[in-house]
Amino acid sequence: MDWSNRFSDIVRERLEDSAIAVMMNIAAREGALLLAAGEPLEDLCPSKRLKKAFERAHEQESHTWGYSHSRTGVLLLRRWIFERMKSDGILPGWVSPDNIFITNGSQEGLSLLTESLFDPGDTVMVESPSYPDAFGVFRKEGLELAGVDLLPDGPDIGSMERLLSDRKVKAFYTIPSFQNPTGFSTSREKKIRILELARKYDFLVIEDEPYRDISFDAAPQGSFLAAAGDDDRVLYMGSFSKTISPGLRCGWIVAPEPLVEVLLKLRTAGTLCLPDIVQQAVYEFVSEGDFGEHLKHICEVYRKNRDAMVDFLRRLAGPEGLEINVPSGGFFIWGEIPWIKDIERFGLFAIKEEKVAFIPGTHFFPGKGMGRDSLRFSFARVTPEMAEEGAKRMRDALIKYRMIQEGENRE
Amino acid sequence: MDWSNRFSDIVRERLEDSAIAVMMNIAAREGALLLAAGEPLEDLCPSKRLKKAFERAHEQESHTWGYSHSRTGVLLLRRWIFERMKSDGILPGWVSPDNIFITNGSQEGLSLLTESLFDPGDTVMVESPSYPDAFGVFRKEGLELAGVDLLPDGPDIGSMERLLSDRKVKAFYTIPSFQNPTGFSTSREKKIRILELARKYDFLVIEDEPYRDISFDAAPQGSFLAAAGDDDRVLYMGSFSKTISPGLRCGWIVAPEPLVEVLLKLRTAGTLCLPDIVQQAVYEFVSEGDFGEHLKHICEVYRKNRDAMVDFLRRLAGPEGLEINVPSGGFFIWGEIPWIKDIERFGLFAIKEEKVAFIPGTHFFPGKGMGRDSLRFSFARVTPEMAEEGAKRMRDALIKYRMIQEGENRE
Repeated sequence: MDWSNRFSDIVRERLEDSAIAVMMNIAAREGALLLAAGEPLEDLCPSKRLKKAFERAHEQESHTWGYSHSRTGVLLLRRWIFERMKSDGILPGWVSPDNIFITNGSQEGLSLLTESLFDPGDTVMVESPSYPDAFGVFRKEGLELAGVDLLPDGPDIGSMERLLSDRKVKAFYTIPSFQNPTGFSTSREKKIRILELARKYDFLVIEDEPYRDISFDAAPQGSFLAAAGDDDRVLYMGSFSKTISPGLRCGWIVAPEPLVEVLLKLRTAGTLCLPDIVQQAVYEFVSEGDFGEHLKHICEVYRKNRDAMVDFLRRLAGPEGLEINVPSGGFFIWGEIPWIKDIERFGLFAIKEEKVAFIPGTHFFPGKGMGRDSLRFSFARVTPEMAEEGAKRMRDALIKYRMIQEGENRE
Repeated sequence: MDWSNRFSDIVRERLEDSAIAVMMNIAAREGALLLAAGEPLEDLCPSKRLKKAFERAHEQESHTWGYSHSRTGVLLLRRWIFERMKSDGILPGWVSPDNIFITNGSQEGLSLLTESLFDPGDTVMVESPSYPDAFGVFRKEGLELAGVDLLPDGPDIGSMERLLSDRKVKAFYTIPSFQNPTGFSTSREKKIRILELARKYDFLVIEDEPYRDISFDAAPQGSFLAAAGDDDRVLYMGSFSKTISPGLRCGWIVAPEPLVEVLLKLRTAGTLCLPDIVQQAVYEFVSEGDFGEHLKHICEVYRKNRDAMVDFLRRLAGPEGLEINVPSGGFFIWGEIPWIKDIERFGLFAIKEEKVAFIPGTHFFPGKGMGRDSLRFSFARVTPEMAEEGAKRMRDALIKYRMIQEGENRE
């Protein structure tokens, strides 16, 4: 049968390949050294303790193998998340464990929120640049993306106000702490200012916080969720993907009760429920008492990785024109190479010629033609030794590519 | 904030409560004896062996905690499913393990297939009656449902031909073995006849087979998938929910390669991937060598449950007008009470007055006003002792309700 014409409009018109996944596949095929993967370092995954957590989970009387009794998620885990967010001071008064909805990672969380709230043609405001796999979710639902420039202390408020006075925006999607791809964090003042605009222009805020706990020098400044107080327009997404393991597929949404009911209906229609055993095991793991120690340990390692990558990139590739920022947490270093005219072409060149891979910055912008001299590195899986080798390869790739580009300019 | 007007058109116009879940909730609240739950008997879940399977899964070198390497599912499990279906004689030649796509239960499988293949306004042909949570998936995607009468040996071919000559149908959704709710199975001859119609009228077949292995007297007759041979228009869904545990959330789709690629893109956009550890544990469990013994054991228990429920219902409630069929497998007994005019009203009456619950047949029909004297029982979680007590309560409820209905008729 010819399958090419069999697919739905959504598949044919809205579905796009993950630009990051495509780039990573090319890099893997070429055997390149990856300075790119936004995925935790395998060695930091507490495999042995996870194995024990699963063993304990199996022993719990509350654990059964039937369909989930609580399709919003295992209650013990929801309570633990509630207490932890409360003690971190990032919850407003209206939130209880019943406002927490466990998801198959934040990707499912964002999909469910998008399906709950948006119709095709609606506009979602996003940071520019931001996370392209979130753009993919929005585009699949037929949304228009409107970008707001992102500065080191958060979105550019002037640019946001111009946008809002120009068109109706249904929600603002933001990664306020150690953002992907920039590493920038939004200040408390800007959070408050944006919430004022949210009330004035009546839009929702989707606050995506996977990197919040991966903090080195400066902790994140509060949350949109708490800053909004009784105004329940902020929908918060948390995740264990960066702090424990992405393979667990365990994240959560904090949302007001009418939205939790809708999420539950969408979950039931879409997949019925998630495997309880995984959530029970995550609870066993985090409640063991030393989750704080675990976080401290992984942050130390990631900080060393960051320091090494910053140092080597500056020393070795800086003289060739690479300019980078220094993030206070998270996984990412954002850079620019002002003399580069086509970063995607240089990205493929670096993979093929010098076996080193980063993600071209263009993929992180909601509009075409932006970020053509920018790029994202990740230090999460890059040890100091790898960073030195990677930075050397970046230097060599830049030297060779500059000669090519200059040759073309002369023609 | 007033949330009532915040939701998407899909939520406001297409999302419906699961009729079965609503009924089960009322029954649970009233403390009724459930002759209704289409869920495996908890005692039959091999909890200890599952615990060991998870332990072995943790030890596998192939197991990591990162994002899934194979986002279509753990390869060992896909290979095992392939070999098993092959030895059951229900695979055509074109299928390889790469055509198997692991899902978060068949509910996710059906959601992904629906999203892949249908646009709003498309028509899906369904058995009448059939599984209402499948209707929910179709309606959420904006599809029209067209019902074909179901007979004990499968869909009524005449009714199907009339429908097909009248309107364009994109796919036929069928549960060919021990169907939910009727317990009916489609004969080999009818499968072949329907595939002829599928080629003539160019529609796809979605073959949903969760009950295939729960077989007592007569094994299912082949599969649509195998009968179609090289014609790759049949999309098969299998599940471990009834044979191991629904809480594992592990099912699969068999589909041609272009569709697997689309499913993978939808999975990536929707949730990135599923937790590998669960699939690895399912593999460890089924590959241990005695999965056949496990199936034999659970089928023996379910057969005893079926025999007891059939016997008690016939003896105790038969004289009050209940007529039931005897399924050769699966979980369900379908019945009719010809003198009943409003089965939903009687269902609530039976719960409140006699503390016994079944699912009213109306919920299983794609159109309104059908099945008003029909009902579904499930014997899966009903021991012979419970069946006797339940049948007594059914008898008492029928006697009392008949007096009420007769009283109303006289008025």
